[in-house]
Amino acid sequence: MKEKKLMIPGPIQPDTKVLQAIGSPVRAHYGKEWTEYYNETLDYLKKVFITKGDVHIIVGSGSSAIDACLGSAFGTGDKVVIPINGFFGERLKAISESYGIEVLPVISPYGEEIQIEEIKKVLKSQSDIKGIAVVHLETSTTIVNPIEKLGQLAREENLTFFVDAVSSLGGLNFRMDDWGIDLCATASQKCLGSPPGLAPVAISEFGWESIEKNKHSKHGWYLNLRTWKQYAEDWADWHPFPITMATNNVTALHTSLEDLLEEGIENRLSRYRNLALRLRRGLRKIGMPPLTPDEIMAPVLTAAYGPGGIPTSEIVDFLGEKHGIKIAGGLGKLKNKVFRIGHMSPSVSEDDIDEVLYALDDFNKSLSGR
Amino acid sequence: MKEKKLMIPGPIQPDTKVLQAIGSPVRAHYGKEWTEYYNETLDYLKKVFITKGDVHIIVGSGSSAIDACLGSAFGTGDKVVIPINGFFGERLKAISESYGIEVLPVISPYGEEIQIEEIKKVLKSQSDIKGIAVVHLETSTTIVNPIEKLGQLAREENLTFFVDAVSSLGGLNFRMDDWGIDLCATASQKCLGSPPGLAPVAISEFGWESIEKNKHSKHGWYLNLRTWKQYAEDWADWHPFPITMATNNVTALHTSLEDLLEEGIENRLSRYRNLALRLRRGLRKIGMPPLTPDEIMAPVLTAAYGPGGIPTSEIVDFLGEKHGIKIAGGLGKLKNKVFRIGHMSPSVSEDDIDEVLYALDDFNKSLSGR
Repeated sequence: MKEKKLMIPGPIQPDTKVLQAIGSPVRAHYGKEWTEYYNETLDYLKKVFITKGDVHIIVGSGSSAIDACLGSAFGTGDKVVIPINGFFGERLKAISESYGIEVLPVISPYGEEIQIEEIKKVLKSQSDIKGIAVVHLETSTTIVNPIEKLGQLAREENLTFFVDAVSSLGGLNFRMDDWGIDLCATASQKCLGSPPGLAPVAISEFGWESIEKNKHSKHGWYLNLRTWKQYAEDWADWHPFPITMATNNVTALHTSLEDLLEEGIENRLSRYRNLALRLRRGLRKIGMPPLTPDEIMAPVLTAAYGPGGIPTSEIVDFLGEKHGIKIAGGLGKLKNKVFRIGHMSPSVSEDDIDEVLYALDDFNKSLSGR
Repeated sequence: MKEKKLMIPGPIQPDTKVLQAIGSPVRAHYGKEWTEYYNETLDYLKKVFITKGDVHIIVGSGSSAIDACLGSAFGTGDKVVIPINGFFGERLKAISESYGIEVLPVISPYGEEIQIEEIKKVLKSQSDIKGIAVVHLETSTTIVNPIEKLGQLAREENLTFFVDAVSSLGGLNFRMDDWGIDLCATASQKCLGSPPGLAPVAISEFGWESIEKNKHSKHGWYLNLRTWKQYAEDWADWHPFPITMATNNVTALHTSLEDLLEEGIENRLSRYRNLALRLRRGLRKIGMPPLTPDEIMAPVLTAAYGPGGIPTSEIVDFLGEKHGIKIAGGLGKLKNKVFRIGHMSPSVSEDDIDEVLYALDDFNKSLSGR
């Protein structure tokens, strides 16, 4: 299978040394040495979440971590407000409803910002709301949702606040504790710079209280955060998780997190912002304007309109076939209206940005030959 | 971290080419090419399960697949018979009870066989039992449970039959359809020859009927087999699973399964049996007799008594520190009574067996010097 240059909204193409790490000999998932290495990985994650709360690494996809957080903190009949402005907001709703949680959706069209005033109205209209759940970076549309503001609302109303940071952690400004986030789910294969397979979760003290208060606790073992807490305590010195940890994947994540912390989170975010601005300038120049204005841009992911209403699947195919660059189409209601370029890998450079712009311009030229 | 030679009951040390596969560049988890590759991996798995049923690959540990099967097929108040003769039998009970399933345990001491007659009595004594759940190879004790016989019982009584084949599939004789198994869970890091991180499940037609009949369906999204079925159908051509698949781990599994099928399942099983017999002969010679007689031996895992009642943790430490061979201690009630040697990796050779025997004999010699 010929490999294409991956510039999709995850999984990303990790650095060579991260790939070497995942391909290193298998280690046992228990014992003193491994436990130290695993705990160091948790410490790195805490620095990226910017939290004094607990972190666990679930073996699974980002959705597994979302499922674990929502299902542990809320139960059948609990009311949770979910702003929805894209595919992954809809997924939060689907996962919540799979537990019988009563979702109070606040819907905006795909590609538009969420409606804070509308959310405030819903919060005022009912007295027994338990929480707010929201996607940080809505990968389907590139919209970045206002986590800090929602966190303030949650604190004012004493609600449990869940954030899906699957596509954002490590690539966007993020401050779990400062922003009053109680439960947060992310994944290894986006801005954290590793292959897919791991789904870190972070839980604040208030988050654990919400979990303890959730009476609907008969919802399983593996994705029940109580299970992870229990083993982290009972088997702390030897095997601080309930399962066979995916040791190779953790070795990769340890390596990519070490890189992130060595570069410095602030430095990396600023590097990403500059790459995003370079891409955006280039896109405007070739008549494929970004979907969002620069003021609310996602620094790791850019959606843009194709020229003259051409179905964007044609652009995706052209780049894949002629230039060996894999980008993504629009999702849901933006299907064939926009294309999306992921630049959330730590190894993406200015040259990569210029290369994708060159390929897009080549698509423009191919049109004039039709 | 200095790597030890891994001879524990999983994770195994895979072949070099499997490690190279997991360390190859990340592929996108969707598209025609990937879907074909993924489906080929499912076909390989079906040949190993020996089933015409459905197979899905959950990103998670073996316990995640067990959780998915039990939670999808049974619900709060459902009665399920679980023979328990070791740590992983106890885990089946814990996972079941996390869903409110009413477990009817049939308990044997650690290291002893399960009591078929007792199970029959329980089945006769109550009319509304829904299923039987059992561990195939009880890794904690090396006891192999009689799946075929239990499958017969399940068919006679029209019960849903779940088997935890985490440690057995690919290393022990196993015939999902012939033995009347409805739901089966396994994992990548044991006899399937890959690093940890993936948990394949197989579901028969009757298994799906049980899932559809289970009215307690509000138990989540990720580990709900209905979710996996829906996406396999709705997104069949492009993305036949609900999540970001762990593509590197699947590439490893594809590679190790290809090896298994190339060698031939029967050939591999016979090779494993011979290695186990070689180990057992050697153990008897040096006064560390196997826990189980050869007639009921596990071909991929051997437990043996230490010499003269010495706590077996001393043997485990000695082999690790002096010989760089990592073996495992006893679990639960067999702690410090036996040690366990895993030989479930496709790359384990006669030389490896002789090397571990040499190291154990060296432990004997170290005793006489005390």
